Amino acid sequence: MAANHLLYISGGARSGKSRYAEQRALALAGPRSYIATCPIIDDEMATRIDRHRQRRDGQGWHTIEEPQDLTAALQTTRDSRVVLVDCITLWINNLLYAAETELNTIDEGAIQALTLQMIDAARQGERTVIFVSNELGMGIVPAETLSRHYRDLVGRCNQTLAAHADEAVFMVSGLPLTLK
Amino acid sequence: MAANHLLYISGGARSGKSRYAEQRALALAGPRSYIATCPIIDDEMATRIDRHRQRRDGQGWHTIEEPQDLTAALQTTRDSRVVLVDCITLWINNLLYAAETELNTIDEGAIQALTLQMIDAARQGERTVIFVSNELGMGIVPAETLSRHYRDLVGRCNQTLAAHADEAVFMVSGLPLTLK
Amino acid sequence: MAANHLLYISGGARSGKSRYAEQRALALAGPRSYIATCPIIDDEMATRIDRHRQRRDGQGWHTIEEPQDLTAALQTTRDSRVVLVDCITLWINNLLYAAETELNTIDEGAIQALTLQMIDAARQGERTVIFVSNELGMGIVPAETLSRHYRDLVGRCNQTLAAHADEAVFMVSGLPLTLK
Repeated sequence: MAANHLLYISGGARSGKSRYAEQRALALAGPRSYIATCPIIDDEMATRIDRHRQRRDGQGWHTIEEPQDLTAALQTTRDSRVVLVDCITLWINNLLYAAETELNTIDEGAIQALTLQMIDAARQGERTVIFVSNELGMGIVPAETLSRHYRDLVGRCNQTLAAHADEAVFMVSGLPLTLK
Repeated sequence: MAANHLLYISGGARSGKSRYAEQRALALAGPRSYIATCPIIDDEMATRIDRHRQRRDGQGWHTIEEPQDLTAALQTTRDSRVVLVDCITLWINNLLYAAETELNTIDEGAIQALTLQMIDAARQGERTVIFVSNELGMGIVPAETLSRHYRDLVGRCNQTLAAHADEAVFMVSGLPLTLK
Repeated sequence: MAANHLLYISGGARSGKSRYAEQRALALAGPRSYIATCPIIDDEMATRIDRHRQRRDGQGWHTIEEPQDLTAALQTTRDSRVVLVDCITLWINNLLYAAETELNTIDEGAIQALTLQMIDAARQGERTVIFVSNELGMGIVPAETLSRHYRDLVGRCNQTLAAHADEAVFMVSGLPLTLK
């Protein structure tokens, strides 16, 4: 049993990623932290978040809402035995949105640097860190430049997380396929 | 060899799902039923249906066209040794369309209840029941609320079918990956 | 070790397909050819191509740019020990575009015939031929007829390539899943 374990979980929308991630976390003893990257921006999202939160109720999770600085959130939660980051896709969405507002740009190099920084932080502490992300690139090529850019940033980040993970899982129809 | 066997087959568009499902069905002896969920609504669809039907020609299939009540169709076909339901995605599409017309709504709870009912019906009889569905959630998040809703309903149904299936397969480029 | 080996690599956008294909090619000794199907049509594409080309720099690749006649390109490169075709999706895109311009049509039968011809050419020579393609059918069904047609042509071609390949791999988040 590794003292520090990185688990990467990917899959499509409604593929059971969050549920599987929580099952894996609940199978581990000790303090649990949940890092939610998701800012509540509309009713549909509020409903989704609420459904996820209900599942965690009464299971002793410490929840942190952090839409952007995942490195800091991972440093803060160093004493937890398991930390679940849900999800990477929204994190990148938040970074993109902030960059646009501030007239900056986020490119693959920037995402790569932030991802490696985040992995470094996750490697600190005797804990399992679970990253949940989405597969976005298996449909028709989107017509909009921004959608393609977003898809590419997520793909780049996913590759880096999966390459560094001790264990990588791809969810299909609620069932896990082992990538490594 | 189980007396009753549920096989779940998923995959993207043009991934060889229907062909694989038919191969699996043809490998089994005894009466075969084909439950087509697909109402013919345009020429493009007619062409696709016709291509599928040609493949089944002369292979002794009993075909039932049932766009909505799959539970009833599964009860009717209890004496078949193999029943192929193709496909779940169109079934949910049909339910959504009917709900809109009748000013009702179909939510995940309703789909979940109908899916469990359908699984109960499939569990009756000494037969193999094959469900074919689609993976819809691995592309960019669709801009339209209805598309997201549809994707979520299909995802929920797929998870339930895969969880209850004795065997689950994910088709990629015409080749089967075993999910369980 | 087979004298002639066909390797099929598929996956979503930014799933690490090209990088993995090049790693596999670089692990083999002898002359290497790269068949690029990609005509440079805009700055975004030029940037992507340039990034790929940089990776191949100084590794002794002989590059051929052939947007349409892959059979001829495969015949020309018979003396290479490894030939990488990147990618099938753009090849089909180019065929579709040319067909429209010339008021022809490309249907699944035509793609099937061209694909089999290409496989025949690839089977000549003591070499490994690597085909890189994309999974396009795991998102929401596209609204436009042309997009659906394109997706279907690619799916058909992918199935044929995978069926004939000695080895087939599906890339997810940069990691290879063995299809066969």
